[in-house]
Amino acid sequence: MTGRKSFGSDNHTGAHPAVIRAIVAANSGDAVAYGADEWTERVTAALSETFQAAGGAFLVLNGSGANVLGLSVLLRRHEAVICAASAHINTDECGAPERLVGTKLLTVPAPDGKLTPELIAGQLGGQGDEHFAQPGVVAVTQSTELGTCYTLAELRKIADFCRASDLRVFVDGARLANAAAYLDCPLAELAECADVLTFGGTKNGAVGAEALVVMRADLAADVPYLRKQQTQLTSKMRFVAAQFGALLAEDLWRNNAVHANAMARRLADGVRDVDGVEIVHPVQANAVFARLRPRHVAALQREWTFHIWDERDSVVRWMTAFDTSAADIDTFLADIRTTASA
Amino acid sequence: MTGRKSFGSDNHTGAHPAVIRAIVAANSGDAVAYGADEWTERVTAALSETFQAAGGAFLVLNGSGANVLGLSVLLRRHEAVICAASAHINTDECGAPERLVGTKLLTVPAPDGKLTPELIAGQLGGQGDEHFAQPGVVAVTQSTELGTCYTLAELRKIADFCRASDLRVFVDGARLANAAAYLDCPLAELAECADVLTFGGTKNGAVGAEALVVMRADLAADVPYLRKQQTQLTSKMRFVAAQFGALLAEDLWRNNAVHANAMARRLADGVRDVDGVEIVHPVQANAVFARLRPRHVAALQREWTFHIWDERDSVVRWMTAFDTSAADIDTFLADIRTTASA
Amino acid sequence: MTGRKSFGSDNHTGAHPAVIRAIVAANSGDAVAYGADEWTERVTAALSETFQAAGGAFLVLNGSGANVLGLSVLLRRHEAVICAASAHINTDECGAPERLVGTKLLTVPAPDGKLTPELIAGQLGGQGDEHFAQPGVVAVTQSTELGTCYTLAELRKIADFCRASDLRVFVDGARLANAAAYLDCPLAELAECADVLTFGGTKNGAVGAEALVVMRADLAADVPYLRKQQTQLTSKMRFVAAQFGALLAEDLWRNNAVHANAMARRLADGVRDVDGVEIVHPVQANAVFARLRPRHVAALQREWTFHIWDERDSVVRWMTAFDTSAADIDTFLADIRTTASA
Amino acid sequence: MTGRKSFGSDNHTGAHPAVIRAIVAANSGDAVAYGADEWTERVTAALSETFQAAGGAFLVLNGSGANVLGLSVLLRRHEAVICAASAHINTDECGAPERLVGTKLLTVPAPDGKLTPELIAGQLGGQGDEHFAQPGVVAVTQSTELGTCYTLAELRKIADFCRASDLRVFVDGARLANAAAYLDCPLAELAECADVLTFGGTKNGAVGAEALVVMRADLAADVPYLRKQQTQLTSKMRFVAAQFGALLAEDLWRNNAVHANAMARRLADGVRDVDGVEIVHPVQANAVFARLRPRHVAALQREWTFHIWDERDSVVRWMTAFDTSAADIDTFLADIRTTASA
Repeated sequence: MTGRKSFGSDNHTGAHPAVIRAIVAANSGDAVAYGADEWTERVTAALSETFQAAGGAFLVLNGSGANVLGLSVLLRRHEAVICAASAHINTDECGAPERLVGTKLLTVPAPDGKLTPELIAGQLGGQGDEHFAQPGVVAVTQSTELGTCYTLAELRKIADFCRASDLRVFVDGARLANAAAYLDCPLAELAECADVLTFGGTKNGAVGAEALVVMRADLAADVPYLRKQQTQLTSKMRFVAAQFGALLAEDLWRNNAVHANAMARRLADGVRDVDGVEIVHPVQANAVFARLRPRHVAALQREWTFHIWDERDSVVRWMTAFDTSAADIDTFLADIRTTASA
Repeated sequence: MTGRKSFGSDNHTGAHPAVIRAIVAANSGDAVAYGADEWTERVTAALSETFQAAGGAFLVLNGSGANVLGLSVLLRRHEAVICAASAHINTDECGAPERLVGTKLLTVPAPDGKLTPELIAGQLGGQGDEHFAQPGVVAVTQSTELGTCYTLAELRKIADFCRASDLRVFVDGARLANAAAYLDCPLAELAECADVLTFGGTKNGAVGAEALVVMRADLAADVPYLRKQQTQLTSKMRFVAAQFGALLAEDLWRNNAVHANAMARRLADGVRDVDGVEIVHPVQANAVFARLRPRHVAALQREWTFHIWDERDSVVRWMTAFDTSAADIDTFLADIRTTASA
Repeated sequence: MTGRKSFGSDNHTGAHPAVIRAIVAANSGDAVAYGADEWTERVTAALSETFQAAGGAFLVLNGSGANVLGLSVLLRRHEAVICAASAHINTDECGAPERLVGTKLLTVPAPDGKLTPELIAGQLGGQGDEHFAQPGVVAVTQSTELGTCYTLAELRKIADFCRASDLRVFVDGARLANAAAYLDCPLAELAECADVLTFGGTKNGAVGAEALVVMRADLAADVPYLRKQQTQLTSKMRFVAAQFGALLAEDLWRNNAVHANAMARRLADGVRDVDGVEIVHPVQANAVFARLRPRHVAALQREWTFHIWDERDSVVRWMTAFDTSAADIDTFLADIRTTASA
Repeated sequence: MTGRKSFGSDNHTGAHPAVIRAIVAANSGDAVAYGADEWTERVTAALSETFQAAGGAFLVLNGSGANVLGLSVLLRRHEAVICAASAHINTDECGAPERLVGTKLLTVPAPDGKLTPELIAGQLGGQGDEHFAQPGVVAVTQSTELGTCYTLAELRKIADFCRASDLRVFVDGARLANAAAYLDCPLAELAECADVLTFGGTKNGAVGAEALVVMRADLAADVPYLRKQQTQLTSKMRFVAAQFGALLAEDLWRNNAVHANAMARRLADGVRDVDGVEIVHPVQANAVFARLRPRHVAALQREWTFHIWDERDSVVRWMTAFDTSAADIDTFLADIRTTASA
C-alpha cells in the first residue's frame, strides 16, 4: 500500500463507521450463542422481508462460505454448476466448490461476465446421460466480476430458461448492492430470478458479514445443518447481525453502493478522453477495467494500489468503494493523465 | 436468557472491551486484504514466537474452522482420527470432519474427557490392514470438554507414544488459555506435544477469532491454500488480527482465563457442601459439571441459563467466563442452595 | 493357504461352475456397453420382480461399492448413519462411507450384531440440533457380520420405528441369500423393511457381482449417475449380468446358501460337545464363531485357514461356502477334536 | 445393435477367448481374497517388470476407478489437474474426480487431444496464489480420446516441463496398448514420462480389468488403502489377475492392439478417396473420426452402430477392436461409399 487511496479492491477498505458503532453497541451483556439472539432474529427477519424470501435468511462469515453453502443447498450429488469462466467460484476460491461440495463447474466464456440462455444451452448436451455430471444449477454473479450488471429483463430470461430446463438459479451477490444501486431497483426484484442468492455486506462496508437468502421455503430446512457443517456458523452471531443491522438502517447499504458506483463512473468518465487508456467493459457497478500500455501500468503502480487483471492483454482493474472520495478519484485521474502522456 | 449472568457457555458473553477497542482502532484507512496487512503480520509473528511454532500461525474465523483446517493439514486421505467420544469434533460439528476432510473418527470413551496412551493403543488394531481406515492423528482437547486439563506429563506421554506409533498429535485448543492458566505454564510448553494446535480467542473474550498454530515447519506450505479452500480466509483480516492483538497485549488472554477458572473454582467450592449437588469431574478449567435432581435442575433453569449435559444422568454444565463476577457466582450459589434444599 | 478347504471366508472360493458357464456363454458377439444390453435388461427385470422393487435393480462390482452407492442414494449431505459397531461399513471399508459419501457413522455396540429400535433410539438425542450430524439412515446387515439373522418380525419393528422417526432403512445384503435360506422366506419379504438394499452375488458363487435394489420408485432417478460417479459402472456389463442370471436360474442362489448354512450348522453341531470349544453367537447363516484356547487356535491354523476374530477374547471365525463339502467339515471337525484335547 | 459388427466402441466387444480361458482356469480351488493369491502376485510382478515400475502395479476394476485412484495418489488436497478439454476424466466420468478426489480440473482445448508444454504453461498463472487451486498434476491420455498418440519425444518434453514446474504426470492409459502398437515401442518407454499411469485391459480384450502402475517407489505406500477406500478392491482378485495374465502371455495385448489399429487404418485408407467423407484427426490408434453429411450419418446408422461425436460439426467416431475383421471393414466401407454417393 502506498499511503494513497487503494483502488485494489472494495475489501481494502475498513468498515463503515456505522457498522463499527453497531458492533460496539452489540457488546452488552450475554446473548445465547449461534444465532438464537435478538440481533440475529431482527436482522434475519428484516432480510427475509427485504428480499421477500420464503425460505429465510442465514448469516455467514464470508463470500466463499456463502457461495459454497448456497451451492450445497441446491445441488444433488451428481450435479454440476454452469457458470461464467470469470465467476469467482471458478477463479478465486481455491477449488472450494469442487472440494467442499464435490461439484463440477461447467465454465463458459462470457462476454462482460454475463451468462445468457444461449450460453447456458450450450452446456446442456449431456443432460440425461449418466456419463456426464448433470447440469443442476446456473450460477450468475450480480454485479459481475467485470463490473457489469444483468438487467432485470436479462435475469428474467435466464430464470425462465432455467425453470424450463430443470435448472436452479444461484446468484452470487457479493456485490448485489452495487447492482441494485445501478439498476435502481429493490433487492426483492433482483432476487426474483433466484432460488438461492447471497447478499454481501463485507465489500459494502461491513467488517465481515454475508447473508444467504433462500427464496424457496422448501429449500430452507437443511441450511442450518449445512452452515454448521461447513464451518460458517459463528458463536457470537450478534456481532455479525449487528453489522447487517447497520447496513440495513436507512438504506445505508444502498447509499454506500450508489456512492461507490458514482466514483467508478467519475473515474471512467475522466479517462474517456485520455489517449492510451481504453475502457474494456461497460462501467455499471464499482469497477473500471481499462487497457493501458504496460509501462504506464508499471508507472502508476509505483504510486497506486490496483490489480493487473490480464497481464497479456495489459488490462487493469480499478475498484471503488463506499469511502472512495471524489478527491481520491481526481488525484488518481491527474496521475493517469500525466502517466499516459509520458 | 433470563437477564441474569449466563452459565450456558463462555460464548454467551460479548467481547472484552479491549478487543472492541482494538477493532475500533483497526478501522483506519485501507489495508491489503486477506492477511497481507501489518496487523496480521505483527500478530502472527507474536503467536509464532509465543508458541515457538516453526510452521507459523494462521488466523481463522471460528473453532470448527480451526479444527477442520488443522486435521486436514495432518491427515492423508485414508487416515482416521483417534479422539475421545466427548471431543467437540465428534459431538458438535455436525459431521464436518467426515464431510470436509473425509476422515473417520475412531472414538474412545475417555474418563474426564482425557485420552491416554492405553486408550489410544486400543484403536491401533487395524494398522497396516488395507480394510481399515488407518489411524493417523490423535486429537486431544485442552482443556477438555469436561473442564479438565491434561498435565504436561500426560501430554508428554501421549506425544511420546504417538511419535513411536507414527501418529501425529492435534490439539483442539478452543480453551487452551484456560489450561495454561490452570497449569500455570507458558503456551509454548502446552504446545510441545503437538504437531498442530488451535488457540481459541472467541471463548476468551474475542468477537470471533481463532488461530491455527503449526509447530512443524514442514507442515506449513499447504495451510494458506487449505484455509482458503475451506472458506476460513477472511478479506478484512486486520479485524481478526486486532482481536488477537488485544488478547496478547499484557497477557490479557491469561488474565481472562485465570479469572474464568477462579470463578468456576468458586462455584465448585460453594456447592461442595450442598446436599443433592455432586461435582462429577475435577474442576480445573472454567466448567463445573454437577449432578442434581431433575426437579432441582428444572427449578434452577427457570431463573438461570445453563445446559443439561446428560439428561439420563441428570448432569448439568455450568460455564464461567472472563466477565463472570464473584457476585454472579454468589447469587447463583445462593439460589442453588435454596433450590437443592427444597 | 494350506491346500485344505479354507474356512477363512466365503470369498476364498472360486465361482460356481454355472456362473463360469454363463460368462462363457455371454462372450458372443457385440453388445452395447454400460448395461444397455439384453443380459442386463433381463437380469435387472428379474431382480426387480424378485424383490418387488419399485425403483429397480442396478448391477455393481463389489460389496463396498454397493454399500457406498446405497448410502449415497439415501443420505442428505448433513446426515449420519446409525449402524452396529460390527457393521462392515464401519469396520471393513477403510473409511469409504466417510470419504466418498461424507457421512458420519453413529455406531452402536449390538449383541450378536443386531440393531433394535431401542439401540437406534439411543442415537437420536441430537435430532433437530444443528450441531449434530442428523441421523438419516439406519443400516442393518442381513445376515449379520456375526452369522446371525434378523427375523422378519425384528425387521418389521425396525422399519416401523424408522418410518415413525423419519429414518430410512438400508440393508447391507452381501449375504442376504444366507438369511433368506435360514428364514426360508422369499427375498421380497426380506426386502420389505428396506428403502434400499444390496443383494450379494460374490459370496454366493459369483466371480464378482452385486446388486443395488431400490424399493422406492422415487429414489431411482439419481442411481445411474451416482453409480457412474462412484466408479461402479462397468462397460462390459453383460458379464456381470450373466453371473446373476446363473444365480437366479432355478434358485441356484438359494441352493448355494442353503448348502453353506447347512455346512456351518454341521460344523457347529460337531463341536458342541467338544471341551474347550465354545460357540459364541447363534449359528444361523454360514459362519461359526467359536472361542478356543490360544494355543489350540495356533495349532489349528498350521493346517487350516481361518480368521482370528477377536485376539484378546480368543474368538475365531469359521466361514462355510457353497462349495464346502460335508467331508471338508468332518475332516476339520476331527482335527478340532484332536487339537482341543491336546 | 444391428447385428453387424459394432463400430460404436472397443468395449462393445466381448472378451478375447484367451481371457475367457484364463478365467475358467483360475476357477480352481480356494485362494486368499483381496489379491493375496498367486495369480495376482505373478501378474503384478510381471506388470511391474514390464513397466519398470518401482512403485508396483495394482489391479482395479474399470477405467474410471483407475483414473480416480491414480489422481488421488498424486494430488494434495488443494491441487488441481491440468488436462485436455476432451479428456475422459473431464467428459465421461460424471464428475468423479471432482467428487471423489475433490479436485478441480483445469481444462485446455487441445488440438487432436494432445497437450503441449505451451498449453500446460497457460494454466500456471495462479501458482503460489492461495486464491487459486494449485496445478499439481498434468493428465495426458495415451492414446488420446481422438485416436491420436503422443510421440515419445512429445512425452519427454511434457515430462521435462512438468518436472521443472513442480507438476506430476498422470497418464490415462485405457488404450495404452494401442499407443504402444502404433509407436512400436515397449510399454516401459511409454511409461517413462509418468509418475503414475493406468494400463487398460478392458478395451484390449479383457472382461473388465485395469492396472494402476506406480512408477515412483515413494508413491506406493498409500495405494492399497486408497484402492480399498475408493471401492476398487475386489475380493476374488485372481479372476482379474487371470485376465491380465492372458493378455500379457505372448504379448497378446500387443497383437490385439496392432490388429485393432490396422483395422482403423484400413477403414481410414478406404474412405480417403470417398467424396463427402473427411478424416478429421490423424488415424494412429484404433479410432477414425470423420465428417459426413448429416443425412449420410443417419442413413449409415440405420445399419451400423457408431457414435456421433460432434453433432453440430457432423463428426462421427468409428472404433475398431481386437475382433474387428478385415471383412467387417470392407463391408462397412462398401456401405459408406454407397451411402456417400447417394
